[in-house]
Amino acid sequence: MLGSDYATQTCSIARALEAVGERWTLLIVRELLLRPSRFTDLLRRLGISRNILISRLTKLVDLEIVHTVNYAHNRDWNTYELTDKGKDLFPIISALMAWGDRYAAPNGPPAIFEHSCGHPVGHRLVCQTCDQPVSAETIHAVVGPGYRPSRPL
Amino acid sequence: MLGSDYATQTCSIARALEAVGERWTLLIVRELLLRPSRFTDLLRRLGISRNILISRLTKLVDLEIVHTVNYAHNRDWNTYELTDKGKDLFPIISALMAWGDRYAAPNGPPAIFEHSCGHPVGHRLVCQTCDQPVSAETIHAVVGPGYRPSRPL
Repeated sequence: MLGSDYATQTCSIARALEAVGERWTLLIVRELLLRPSRFTDLLRRLGISRNILISRLTKLVDLEIVHTVNYAHNRDWNTYELTDKGKDLFPIISALMAWGDRYAAPNGPPAIFEHSCGHPVGHRLVCQTCDQPVSAETIHAVVGPGYRPSRPL
Repeated sequence: MLGSDYATQTCSIARALEAVGERWTLLIVRELLLRPSRFTDLLRRLGISRNILISRLTKLVDLEIVHTVNYAHNRDWNTYELTDKGKDLFPIISALMAWGDRYAAPNGPPAIFEHSCGHPVGHRLVCQTCDQPVSAETIHAVVGPGYRPSRPL
């Protein structure tokens, strides 16, 4: 049915969610941002079912968000690592974490990302042109070159 | 089962996903970032099922991410608007859009967010202390005040 799936929407937000919006996918990416990991490490740290982890990792490898590195030429010891495309998911993780810290962490942030400068990163989004802070109130959407009028924005 | 659900994870990313990680929720937020909308407008623009839209909007209202505004004292004409907590989801939407534009928009971005300065916003994340760009390579995670050792980070 047209429009019943993210994939039918001409929208980069929908397309990103099509790739990484499934339950658990972004928590797998979170783990791999912290450290390359073996299958059993992910299974243990995330506490999810084996089948879901296999399904999500297979899709992430297909989409070239994750790649596998063989350890000591033993296929059972594959280590999963983020590709550059996967590392570029960091701003999504960071934005989710900033919102969760603000609205769903009554005891304070469970974890903090520190920048290489030695201070907490926070999540500060600035305009690439004027360097001023960007928020919902200071933006509006305009049609871009990839817009297809036959489908909803 | 412990660990089988986002809610059991002491992690702001998991908690944010618990609130807005369900399928379609962030596309509803996208619509409401662009403009306050009535139920029938959301139904038409998103092309999702009535039941899913009701379920997602009910949860968003319960979580105070969305509130309803009566139009002309007629309850059937409720307009859904983002609260401040909802507007603060903008960086998540912006980060998803930036990644989708880069990796899943072969014809170019379908839509562009323009800043109030008149230029495209892009998605530029900077450290709140040193103002330098932040990426996966320039951060590491440390334990925060809300960390509970009995549960996985």
